[in-house]
Amino acid sequence: MNYPHIFSVAEICSKHDIEHAVISPGSRSAPLTLAFARHKKIKCKVIPDERAAAFVAMGMAQQLNKPVALICTSGSAALNYYPAIAEAYFQQIPLLILTADRPPEWIDQLDGQTIRQENVYGRHVKRSYNIEADLSSEDAQWYLQRQVNEGIIEANQYPKGPVHINFPFREPLYTTETVEYPETKIIKSESVNPVFTDTQIDSLKNELLKFERKLIICGQNQYTPEVLGFLEQVSKELKIPVVGDIISNIHSIESAVTHSDVFLSSDKSGLDKSLKPDLLITIGKSILSKNLKIMLRKNQPDEHWHVQQAGDVADTYKSLTRIIHGEELEFLKVLIDSQSSEDFQNQKQENYYHIWQIEERKTQRHIDNFFPQAFPSEFSMIREVLSQANSVNLHLANSMAVRYANFIGIKADQKDITVFCNRGTSGIDGSTSTAIGASMASNKINLLISGDMAFLYDRNAFWHNYDYSNFRALVLNNHGGGIFRMINGPSNTPEVDEYFVTNQKNTAKHLAEEFGIEYLLCDKKSKINNYIKRLLEDDGTPKILEIESDSVNDKQILQEFKAAYNKLK
Amino acid sequence: MNYPHIFSVAEICSKHDIEHAVISPGSRSAPLTLAFARHKKIKCKVIPDERAAAFVAMGMAQQLNKPVALICTSGSAALNYYPAIAEAYFQQIPLLILTADRPPEWIDQLDGQTIRQENVYGRHVKRSYNIEADLSSEDAQWYLQRQVNEGIIEANQYPKGPVHINFPFREPLYTTETVEYPETKIIKSESVNPVFTDTQIDSLKNELLKFERKLIICGQNQYTPEVLGFLEQVSKELKIPVVGDIISNIHSIESAVTHSDVFLSSDKSGLDKSLKPDLLITIGKSILSKNLKIMLRKNQPDEHWHVQQAGDVADTYKSLTRIIHGEELEFLKVLIDSQSSEDFQNQKQENYYHIWQIEERKTQRHIDNFFPQAFPSEFSMIREVLSQANSVNLHLANSMAVRYANFIGIKADQKDITVFCNRGTSGIDGSTSTAIGASMASNKINLLISGDMAFLYDRNAFWHNYDYSNFRALVLNNHGGGIFRMINGPSNTPEVDEYFVTNQKNTAKHLAEEFGIEYLLCDKKSKINNYIKRLLEDDGTPKILEIESDSVNDKQILQEFKAAYNKLK
Repeated sequence: MNYPHIFSVAEICSKHDIEHAVISPGSRSAPLTLAFARHKKIKCKVIPDERAAAFVAMGMAQQLNKPVALICTSGSAALNYYPAIAEAYFQQIPLLILTADRPPEWIDQLDGQTIRQENVYGRHVKRSYNIEADLSSEDAQWYLQRQVNEGIIEANQYPKGPVHINFPFREPLYTTETVEYPETKIIKSESVNPVFTDTQIDSLKNELLKFERKLIICGQNQYTPEVLGFLEQVSKELKIPVVGDIISNIHSIESAVTHSDVFLSSDKSGLDKSLKPDLLITIGKSILSKNLKIMLRKNQPDEHWHVQQAGDVADTYKSLTRIIHGEELEFLKVLIDSQSSEDFQNQKQENYYHIWQIEERKTQRHIDNFFPQAFPSEFSMIREVLSQANSVNLHLANSMAVRYANFIGIKADQKDITVFCNRGTSGIDGSTSTAIGASMASNKINLLISGDMAFLYDRNAFWHNYDYSNFRALVLNNHGGGIFRMINGPSNTPEVDEYFVTNQKNTAKHLAEEFGIEYLLCDKKSKINNYIKRLLEDDGTPKILEIESDSVNDKQILQEFKAAYNKLK
Repeated sequence: MNYPHIFSVAEICSKHDIEHAVISPGSRSAPLTLAFARHKKIKCKVIPDERAAAFVAMGMAQQLNKPVALICTSGSAALNYYPAIAEAYFQQIPLLILTADRPPEWIDQLDGQTIRQENVYGRHVKRSYNIEADLSSEDAQWYLQRQVNEGIIEANQYPKGPVHINFPFREPLYTTETVEYPETKIIKSESVNPVFTDTQIDSLKNELLKFERKLIICGQNQYTPEVLGFLEQVSKELKIPVVGDIISNIHSIESAVTHSDVFLSSDKSGLDKSLKPDLLITIGKSILSKNLKIMLRKNQPDEHWHVQQAGDVADTYKSLTRIIHGEELEFLKVLIDSQSSEDFQNQKQENYYHIWQIEERKTQRHIDNFFPQAFPSEFSMIREVLSQANSVNLHLANSMAVRYANFIGIKADQKDITVFCNRGTSGIDGSTSTAIGASMASNKINLLISGDMAFLYDRNAFWHNYDYSNFRALVLNNHGGGIFRMINGPSNTPEVDEYFVTNQKNTAKHLAEEFGIEYLLCDKKSKINNYIKRLLEDDGTPKILEIESDSVNDKQILQEFKAAYNKLK
């Protein structure tokens, strides 16, 4: 009998402050569904398409910064979770995946909805547990409760991520009796931050003084206001360039360099070399700018230090020499403190800093002067929408949407914008569902900017009965994967249209009608301003603003943008 | 350099008679895409949503009975294939999955579209190969070509199934040079059928004579006309009941018993025991009828022999005693031959046979008399459509559609109907895409019967530019997962509506408009006949016929159907 032992799972989740569950319908999962649906402190949502459900849960967990439980039935249901689980794994978003399964004796016996679920997410979950089918013994109950505790602790521990618990259930799957939530075992956990010893601090300071061209690159993250404050100080006082992308969320730092993907695309010789650091310091996760990666791989720093509390570290620039398993904040404190040394000299660092600043400012002027462009232009449209956005969660879909937005960037005076993008696996498969999940877990306007391919791919994001009235989408529809026209390789092959761009006829119109979303088609230049205002209006109605453009024309505008930049002195 | 070595992959596929590839757009996969797109003997289709693409490829491979190549880019693209791959694995449908990957040195380095792809499909592919990134040495080229040959042979070998080949590609991914298809190594393979020795035949015959209540159950399959002929003979002459479901495709055998799920649901005591066999012989894959499984698990045969050429065998009825690794056809010959023995006696077998026949005929009469029902009724609608179908591939979606269709069945005089249903994993995730794939690979009308949940789940089946003019769908829309109202457990919980049935508002109307599919809404009883005629008309226009019903009412009709059956003498 699964009851009441399975009810302890919901109770343990609740005690660990899990407040939301996303459930996909199924019968094998009934014990879990009932355990969560009946729990007074857990809000449950039912989303039928498991692929969308998992991205929605991930979007919620990302906003809440704590695990959301995912519940599905046995069989291929669990496989449909996988794209979101991989994304959560690489983006370090906590998820507690609870899959129902047939008991072991019925695997491979041609019973319905039965696959080989144990460890099915392979190396894309932090840990995987398989619960015993027979929970009648006290030891099995202790083991179950311990495993659920362990799983939640693991999902929450840095680096956070998805954890899978597989539940083989024997029948009966239902009970007509009243089930009480049992007494549960709770294992609390708390993290103590690593602190540098005085010896380490002295040694770090001394080493830092040796470098005259220090560079900080901030990868994708939502940095705390404290870290952002220290980064600003490092930039202003120590004259260390602080470089990032739109997904780095460092746009509140006025002196941050966020346009490297534009100015490093220029072919001016010498610039690359003059930007070469002697010490590269990195924090955060991935960087979007391919040009920044290429530049640094060519012009490698003497040393590359990555600061990260724990977990795997990537050698993104092929120059990694040191991993500092510490907190970014503590490291930045040491860095700032290094000023106080009597050996501190800053002239060369300042010169280096100004090279970055000059390029950044030139690029910003270029962007300001380049627009508006002839209608319709997806690039212009993103720029208009971005410039009017304030106090939003900005969700950028892969693949061109995030690149365009990165070219344009967010200005320091645009307050309260946090940028999200599924750069864990960089797929187009769940951007909309992630934004819908965020809409459910955050009171802010959640603005998604997406191309037609990503948007139509993930249309089941809307297929459920829950409120997403604070959801807004700008859909850039050039009827195909415009990115393949932009990048050099495919655009030169005769197969570009059919096999790469994949021309597709659809728009968001029918979808908007079907799901009762307000739909604005911006088919005239004169409509742009009003429609963007309408899009961003906080009136409790979800909206889609769509623009149809021509991908050949879009490509030309982007080429002109780059060419015009290269002509600047 | 990936070229021209990767071009050998397409050439080897072609030499192994692979004629179709389904490609999803991507850049990392460009070498594979170009190798297949440029090959004169391989027809390529581009389908953007990888989940749908894989089910489409599976639907094609199922019709063609040979592998279709699937090509996708690196990252989560490959994960979206997984539901279809698991289905193909358990349904034994050959697929050649070619995934592009980053080279090993760039895994886990925060590069875009990079996951841990090696062996990512775990135990749901027959084999998994990882190609070397550096193909410059002759040995690497030999190894590549050998692995591709091996993979295709493995996919084709009984039991057929999906094979994964992962291709890590270093840049450049494109070439502007003309690439010639290189000389390729071809390893041919041929299967020699296992034949019983004379000693085995004699021994089998002797043993068969010991049993007086032999029963044959045919699981899901498309049996050859020869096997069907022998089964008919076994039924008519040897009086061995030949039992199956709608998915067994034995409906052309006039004496076949295909309504066991109805008559075994009755609560008449004694019937179960009188149907207990002493020897159960099974062939084929899964059985749909839960009542048949329950009956046989309760009333176990003395022996259960399963006949299958190779591969895993399930103990579906908990009574498996012998696996005969041989061909069904050869075994049936031996069985028929056993008649010629002088010890052959048939009276008890004939009595046993008649018990099954009586129940089958009574059920058939009941079905004939029970309809038509008050409008709207999804059960009636399926019955009307099924009775008018001829010369079609009939695709049944999980979960209620296939059960209803199984209650009604196909009559022996309905010619040229082959039934398909994704009973490998029994998911609702890819029924439409599978039917669309079948439409692309077969000239027959491909008729899908689906509930609203399965149909809307898999709506991206239509999102591409290829012809499916021979596709037809009957959509039974009761705005939720009606199955959860039918089965006892969930229907008794207060959570049934929100957490199990998952009421959903949508219909197929918008989708039909969006994708240019003719849409017929049957909202009046008087329209039924005309609309069904129109639906089945072979006029080169894809069509959807939808009926909206009330799931509470649908449940009542099904209960009446069962109650009325139980009242029969």
